[in-house]
Amino acid sequence: MAISLGANRYGKAEIRLVHVERSTPTHTPTDLNVSVALAGDLAAAHTDGDNANVLPTDTQKNTVYAFAAEHGIGTVEEFALRLGRHFVETPSIDRAVITIEAYPWRRLGPHSFQRDGGEVRTARVTVDADTQHVVSGVTDLVLMNTTDSEFVGYHKDRYTTLPEATDRILATSVTAAWRHHRTPGDWDAAYATARSALADAFAGTYSRALQETLYAMGRRVLEADDGLAEVRLALPNRHHFLVDMTPFGLTNDGIVFHADDRPYGLIEGTVRRDDIEEAPQAWTS
Amino acid sequence: MAISLGANRYGKAEIRLVHVERSTPTHTPTDLNVSVALAGDLAAAHTDGDNANVLPTDTQKNTVYAFAAEHGIGTVEEFALRLGRHFVETPSIDRAVITIEAYPWRRLGPHSFQRDGGEVRTARVTVDADTQHVVSGVTDLVLMNTTDSEFVGYHKDRYTTLPEATDRILATSVTAAWRHHRTPGDWDAAYATARSALADAFAGTYSRALQETLYAMGRRVLEADDGLAEVRLALPNRHHFLVDMTPFGLTNDGIVFHADDRPYGLIEGTVRRDDIEEAPQAWTS
Amino acid sequence: MAISLGANRYGKAEIRLVHVERSTPTHTPTDLNVSVALAGDLAAAHTDGDNANVLPTDTQKNTVYAFAAEHGIGTVEEFALRLGRHFVETPSIDRAVITIEAYPWRRLGPHSFQRDGGEVRTARVTVDADTQHVVSGVTDLVLMNTTDSEFVGYHKDRYTTLPEATDRILATSVTAAWRHHRTPGDWDAAYATARSALADAFAGTYSRALQETLYAMGRRVLEADDGLAEVRLALPNRHHFLVDMTPFGLTNDGIVFHADDRPYGLIEGTVRRDDIEEAPQAWTS
Amino acid sequence: MAISLGANRYGKAEIRLVHVERSTPTHTPTDLNVSVALAGDLAAAHTDGDNANVLPTDTQKNTVYAFAAEHGIGTVEEFALRLGRHFVETPSIDRAVITIEAYPWRRLGPHSFQRDGGEVRTARVTVDADTQHVVSGVTDLVLMNTTDSEFVGYHKDRYTTLPEATDRILATSVTAAWRHHRTPGDWDAAYATARSALADAFAGTYSRALQETLYAMGRRVLEADDGLAEVRLALPNRHHFLVDMTPFGLTNDGIVFHADDRPYGLIEGTVRRDDIEEAPQAWTS
Repeated sequence: MAISLGANRYGKAEIRLVHVERSTPTHTPTDLNVSVALAGDLAAAHTDGDNANVLPTDTQKNTVYAFAAEHGIGTVEEFALRLGRHFVETPSIDRAVITIEAYPWRRLGPHSFQRDGGEVRTARVTVDADTQHVVSGVTDLVLMNTTDSEFVGYHKDRYTTLPEATDRILATSVTAAWRHHRTPGDWDAAYATARSALADAFAGTYSRALQETLYAMGRRVLEADDGLAEVRLALPNRHHFLVDMTPFGLTNDGIVFHADDRPYGLIEGTVRRDDIEEAPQAWTS
Repeated sequence: MAISLGANRYGKAEIRLVHVERSTPTHTPTDLNVSVALAGDLAAAHTDGDNANVLPTDTQKNTVYAFAAEHGIGTVEEFALRLGRHFVETPSIDRAVITIEAYPWRRLGPHSFQRDGGEVRTARVTVDADTQHVVSGVTDLVLMNTTDSEFVGYHKDRYTTLPEATDRILATSVTAAWRHHRTPGDWDAAYATARSALADAFAGTYSRALQETLYAMGRRVLEADDGLAEVRLALPNRHHFLVDMTPFGLTNDGIVFHADDRPYGLIEGTVRRDDIEEAPQAWTS
Repeated sequence: MAISLGANRYGKAEIRLVHVERSTPTHTPTDLNVSVALAGDLAAAHTDGDNANVLPTDTQKNTVYAFAAEHGIGTVEEFALRLGRHFVETPSIDRAVITIEAYPWRRLGPHSFQRDGGEVRTARVTVDADTQHVVSGVTDLVLMNTTDSEFVGYHKDRYTTLPEATDRILATSVTAAWRHHRTPGDWDAAYATARSALADAFAGTYSRALQETLYAMGRRVLEADDGLAEVRLALPNRHHFLVDMTPFGLTNDGIVFHADDRPYGLIEGTVRRDDIEEAPQAWTS
Repeated sequence: MAISLGANRYGKAEIRLVHVERSTPTHTPTDLNVSVALAGDLAAAHTDGDNANVLPTDTQKNTVYAFAAEHGIGTVEEFALRLGRHFVETPSIDRAVITIEAYPWRRLGPHSFQRDGGEVRTARVTVDADTQHVVSGVTDLVLMNTTDSEFVGYHKDRYTTLPEATDRILATSVTAAWRHHRTPGDWDAAYATARSALADAFAGTYSRALQETLYAMGRRVLEADDGLAEVRLALPNRHHFLVDMTPFGLTNDGIVFHADDRPYGLIEGTVRRDDIEEAPQAWTS
């Protein structure tokens, strides 16, 4: 028996970068949270405290800022790819994973903006010597349907007390990500298409289970862009409980709800094109 | 020397209520976080565990839901006033403070919505037997100007190292509240007016100090609505530091910033009409 | 009618300072979150963007770090007083409010420590030319009694459905602060006394209402230290609901609870010595 | 080309359960956050809204509470295994993943307790028809060494500005989990052993890189218990920056630090016994 080092990586997380495009009087801000993770020949750092192969996380942070100054941002996917390709040129670094959250701002004037809290755009890029994977996504997209949702016909056992519901609120905070199997002409347009597909499918689906809504959302995204290989979704079921008004002699026909925090349902699933090879390393490396 | 009970109050906090107006096929949700605080003759509960004068916080919660079912919501100020007036009719309860946060949703379809994270509307109502005070407000309104902000000419002492800045990012998360000295015809319109005045003044003010921006924002709100007596603002200065690119042989002329979390400046101030009597109990009771 | 500037203040918030006493091989860390707020003749900054009287918040931050290097920390109250007295010597600054949170660490070795999440010690000092006020306190002190708590005999109205409880869990997260009317010989000992009094009173009181527990806690603190003028407490009632097991043919005699997040009761009160003058400016300036 | 459903699962997350052992006058609380995730033949729910194979998440929640009442908790690993085995007996459910966070409480009296924020114990159990995996762990264990840490000899490139450090603070918030390849006689004792090994290795290791500390911690855990197959660690590097006092004419020889929030280093790694087969499904299913 021997004890040995297994999979490992390291990097700088949550680099908060704001870039202002100000080449014209109408400025445009890009507000990012960038994380870098690198893997390679790092055994000696672990076993002997030998840092010869370690590019400091402080240097990684500097690089993110310097690249923004030198090359601009472009789209978040392009920025992530440029960073990833750079880092794998470091001796002994074989793989770079760059993840980005982009916070949207609404324009109020030529150089004035309001933070738009409606959702956060994400990108995750995995680069090694030969290959690259790009996963785009969205998080904190909170959606609600006030009707056209039911939940009936489920399996019941000794512990089931839930009454069937033929008309309920369906609310969720969408975390979704989609893997590109080829590079789109316009990353921003591809994002807009996928994001709209998610919201449209949520709004347009009569839901007999949140699973049905999840599958409809994933399917719609793939149908809208044949450059996408798969979509992964995590949908918390943010329960809204109808408040019982009978003690007060009142009716409550789908009008007044208690929005609960915990526990919540959590529905997770993948929708994929079955003629495109899977790429688990795009998600978990 | 004797030890005695001083000021006290109690209530139910953070009642999460969602009301759906569904009298027509086009639904409208109202998504609220309601808190109740009551004061009165509660000494015996403290000193003798005698609850005869205590209306349970559970009952307060029930009342909030039941009023939503029985009377609807209307505007948040009206809902808060209706609740406050009800609670002070309870024997031994002299004063009720109702605070509400209202979360906005964007319409996606007749019964589909996306949570709009751009800001949260607030209301705070203080009701006792003879008087009532209404304070409306906003929180989580995050604003940024990418230029037209400077900070020069400040007092310097032994510990001052900050270089003067003639062009910087100014960013803040606005918490503001304004006290009505008379009842507006339309609470929602009054909110929209005040909220626009805040954003417009932020965007339109060349800022030589965040204090100057604060005062301009407060002044603009009062000028826009003569039914308002005072505005209180708390503006964290969300520092964006220009990243030094000289080690990398690059320039950075107001382009690339590090958005820092802590510490942050915090600027707080009141702007008021000096011919209207102050009402501290509207804010702190 | 004229619009004018009312009360205002400004400062640097959440300065995260770690000081290591390392004069001997056994190190001692002090881990603080320090906030500064200054008031004075700041009208011109608001109305004319004239910063001549403004000591930058960056300078305030520098001062906090420099004082830690030059004078050490001592107790948090002494550190806050030293800072406050310094800031009011600035021309045009009349009042300084220094608030500190101190995070405790448990010793694991001569220079090794584990963060102790059990509670946070607080201090709030208000200094002006002639006077000073010191308020010490604690927050995030989470306490639970699994029995010896009841809630019966309360006022009932149309909206009351809560059944009386003769044996329930009582749990709360204590935020308490106590004002010193004279300077203790040892601030750390005074803190330890007050903090123990709070926990002992919570554990030792048969509770017929959370108000009764609050009053017992405040009273115990004052009885333990006659240098204290008043105690203010805010006690959220963290509800633990007994889960109904009858659908499953099981009993549940005070054994299995659902710990709920929201809404929660919130009980607030002051216990004071009635022969000591009140000092509201110690709390709200 | 066809679009199809890929991997999926669903369940109830964050069930907040408090169990009180009160068979003797000295009570013992167990305070848990339990999440359930189930996988199986759920395609019809996704594609046709057919819930015949769906055990409602509400039933899962009921089951967690009912099992606590019927069987008690025992250790968190046993409780998780009992739940997991139950759920896979549901028709069409093939796999259950139960994750638990356990919040510690310190005893203040026979039925009085203070929440101990020092760390959270975790368990993750994966059960299917034939196999089961148990991963125990800890999170929020915040550790600091005030000396015996350096960082020198690292790779430098164009973007490196970090000066080498021969004496720095090393602080981290440990998230660690270890997989059992056989069942220990006493889960609680096994937890105590692993948790102590982590803290001891952190305190006892002269660190030339956080990677070296990570490896020492993992190695120590495996050495302490030969029933463990592997340890996975995620160690954020909570940077403490020495404040430059030269502008103030002061020295700062490892005394005064700014504790920064973001960005932070993030070091992740696995230490394993290479004669035990890997079991990725124990971690990610």
